[in-house]
Amino acid sequence: MDIREQALKMHKDYQGKLAVVSKVPLANGHDLSLAYTPGVAEPCKDIKTNKDLSFEYTCRGNMIAVVSDGTRVLGLGDIGPEAAIPVMEGKAVLFKAFGDVDAVPICLDTKDPDKFIETVKLLQPTFAGINLEDISSPKCYDIEDRLKAEMDIPVFHDDQHGTAIAALSALIGALRLVKKNLATAAIVVNGAGAAGTAIGRLLVNAGAQNVIIVDIHGALYDGMPGLNRVQEQLAKVTNKEKRQGDLTAMARGADALLGVSVPGAFTKEIISSMNTDAIVLAMANPVPEISYAEAKAAGAKVAGTGRSDAPNQVNNVTVFPGVFRGAIDVRARQINETMKIAAAYAIADLIPASELKEDFIVPNAFDPRVAPAVAAAVARTAMETGVARIQVDPEEIRANTATRIKLSKNKRER
Amino acid sequence: MDIREQALKMHKDYQGKLAVVSKVPLANGHDLSLAYTPGVAEPCKDIKTNKDLSFEYTCRGNMIAVVSDGTRVLGLGDIGPEAAIPVMEGKAVLFKAFGDVDAVPICLDTKDPDKFIETVKLLQPTFAGINLEDISSPKCYDIEDRLKAEMDIPVFHDDQHGTAIAALSALIGALRLVKKNLATAAIVVNGAGAAGTAIGRLLVNAGAQNVIIVDIHGALYDGMPGLNRVQEQLAKVTNKEKRQGDLTAMARGADALLGVSVPGAFTKEIISSMNTDAIVLAMANPVPEISYAEAKAAGAKVAGTGRSDAPNQVNNVTVFPGVFRGAIDVRARQINETMKIAAAYAIADLIPASELKEDFIVPNAFDPRVAPAVAAAVARTAMETGVARIQVDPEEIRANTATRIKLSKNKRER
Repeated sequence: MDIREQALKMHKDYQGKLAVVSKVPLANGHDLSLAYTPGVAEPCKDIKTNKDLSFEYTCRGNMIAVVSDGTRVLGLGDIGPEAAIPVMEGKAVLFKAFGDVDAVPICLDTKDPDKFIETVKLLQPTFAGINLEDISSPKCYDIEDRLKAEMDIPVFHDDQHGTAIAALSALIGALRLVKKNLATAAIVVNGAGAAGTAIGRLLVNAGAQNVIIVDIHGALYDGMPGLNRVQEQLAKVTNKEKRQGDLTAMARGADALLGVSVPGAFTKEIISSMNTDAIVLAMANPVPEISYAEAKAAGAKVAGTGRSDAPNQVNNVTVFPGVFRGAIDVRARQINETMKIAAAYAIADLIPASELKEDFIVPNAFDPRVAPAVAAAVARTAMETGVARIQVDPEEIRANTATRIKLSKNKRER
Repeated sequence: MDIREQALKMHKDYQGKLAVVSKVPLANGHDLSLAYTPGVAEPCKDIKTNKDLSFEYTCRGNMIAVVSDGTRVLGLGDIGPEAAIPVMEGKAVLFKAFGDVDAVPICLDTKDPDKFIETVKLLQPTFAGINLEDISSPKCYDIEDRLKAEMDIPVFHDDQHGTAIAALSALIGALRLVKKNLATAAIVVNGAGAAGTAIGRLLVNAGAQNVIIVDIHGALYDGMPGLNRVQEQLAKVTNKEKRQGDLTAMARGADALLGVSVPGAFTKEIISSMNTDAIVLAMANPVPEISYAEAKAAGAKVAGTGRSDAPNQVNNVTVFPGVFRGAIDVRARQINETMKIAAAYAIADLIPASELKEDFIVPNAFDPRVAPAVAAAVARTAMETGVARIQVDPEEIRANTATRIKLSKNKRER
């Protein structure tokens, strides 16, 4: 069977990938009297007087929603909410396996951002966090911004921030290897959609002072016509010299070139025109802007892609499980930029300088230290930046996360 | 520890009662390539061309939402959405244990019926059915009616219809025992809220021709002032003689008295004034209108309550798991009155006439034959009434349900 047949068979045999199960014993009437009437009234009464107890006494404390409208799914485009379910389910499965987070897929039957926002807000009492997924740009910006402003639980658009954190973590590792500095390195990001703009913002917030974002119309600069709101804001804090020109011009002499654009966008000529010790992260999925081998052959000192069949896989599965694990463990009200930067450094810091190599700048996606490290860093910075509802020792979170994911990898319905 | 302490400890120890787990193996990169990218794109593409495949290829096919706004929870009243979660979680646990249905609790942060309706409609692509729960009356009627009219998956307000089906099934058993007829028996229902009106309607639709609904203002009759929309409709098809008077007057000479009202509402005098072979189903919870022993002592031939510590427990746990099991197994678009009546008879028919006794008119809530029988009957009538998307042999559904619940009782996260 080819992969299409295998994938369809698996999805059909199991009728999807997720199940809802009980955590509590239900063997007899006594068990039932605690889980349901009359005992269930006791947590209800206590939560009524203090809503925060819902995180403690109910599944809400470990449950997030993975929400999409199906308008930009994988590389398939606007395929609708029903057709988006397999991806949201897949994401939920990864949340469980890599972070022991209970995640519920929610695919909404609307393309109207206002209705989307209203609905997600009304879902708040049931969940500890909201992971947005596969929503078309630019409406994804408004949706996330408004939800963040109007909700009291973390809202995180993984296509933006998961990708940005993964990219930053790889860039930190690569820069350490080539002994260059994030603050001064000349960094070009190709692609100004949801992922590209999020990478640009995170780089700037992390201290990068020489960032240029390029899209199909050339380098973004302050005052450039035709930019959307997010691109406009980004153009003000990047490309300080207001350079104009295409990718070929911008990449010349650059220290790092990051791609979240289209297959084939990086030619050998572009790579070979970069500064010495060039870093190339070609993250278009599943076919990168340039293959790992071609980038290396063209002169890149360090290359990385989104693919698992080449070294230096830049993959947000290293990010979202730990980010939410840490955020919900301290009942964070939001996931802010400081927490995102801390997550990127937590991933990068797993490889000491002495172990960094051209083909090893990021930990493997299956490295069991990743989610615990990310969770601890995210929880710590949530507390430090005042968005945590409760205080928990980050080292306790690291240890607990390690234990939880060791167990959760084997947790299946049976 | 008393039950309060035990219940709080259990809810805290497990952090609620529900978890989301994977049904598919995730042991290596190959598993991941089927469950997530690139393999996951295959079911997405197929569902895009045929939305109904979402029932086959995703968890949607076995997943319902248990939705509440927390405005009327147990006997606790309007305690808000966060405080309602333990009850919805408990319901979800019962759906799993007794019907192997995956149920997700959704507590909405609004008391506005229009917003509630809009939100539930937008959730449609993710779920195979909607179980409404603990919504205050009379808005629960409008919410359910509009959702049924505007959605293409079953919408079932359990407080109304689960209770009504359970009551009808017990009444059928009791009437068989005393050799009276549903069509001609004089039946009085005390309580004209969500449960009482639903019981009244189901009785009439099942063929009962002599039904009187009584509330605190007396017997409902056509033209009575102060009735809500649902009570008005019901008054037109019950109490054909437009009798006026209180419960005491209406119960005199009645064959059956059903209570969904308040503790203590049925006195010994009321019971003893009924016809010979009187049937009394006192379903107020947790304290009935009259206790089993008192009803019997006052002359009732058959008595039943909602309590597990007396004979003839009338409990909708015998109803909702099987109803949804059958409905989603044939991908029903709705749960209509015919399906509800079939569910009631399926429960009653589990006790052959030769086994009926005064203290055994309904099967035990833990009887493993109940959900399979209900599922088969509901699926069969869904197909017969043209609301099923697919055709499945009801006997196959009965057998599969029996197997599923045998396994699901032991399914827990571990």
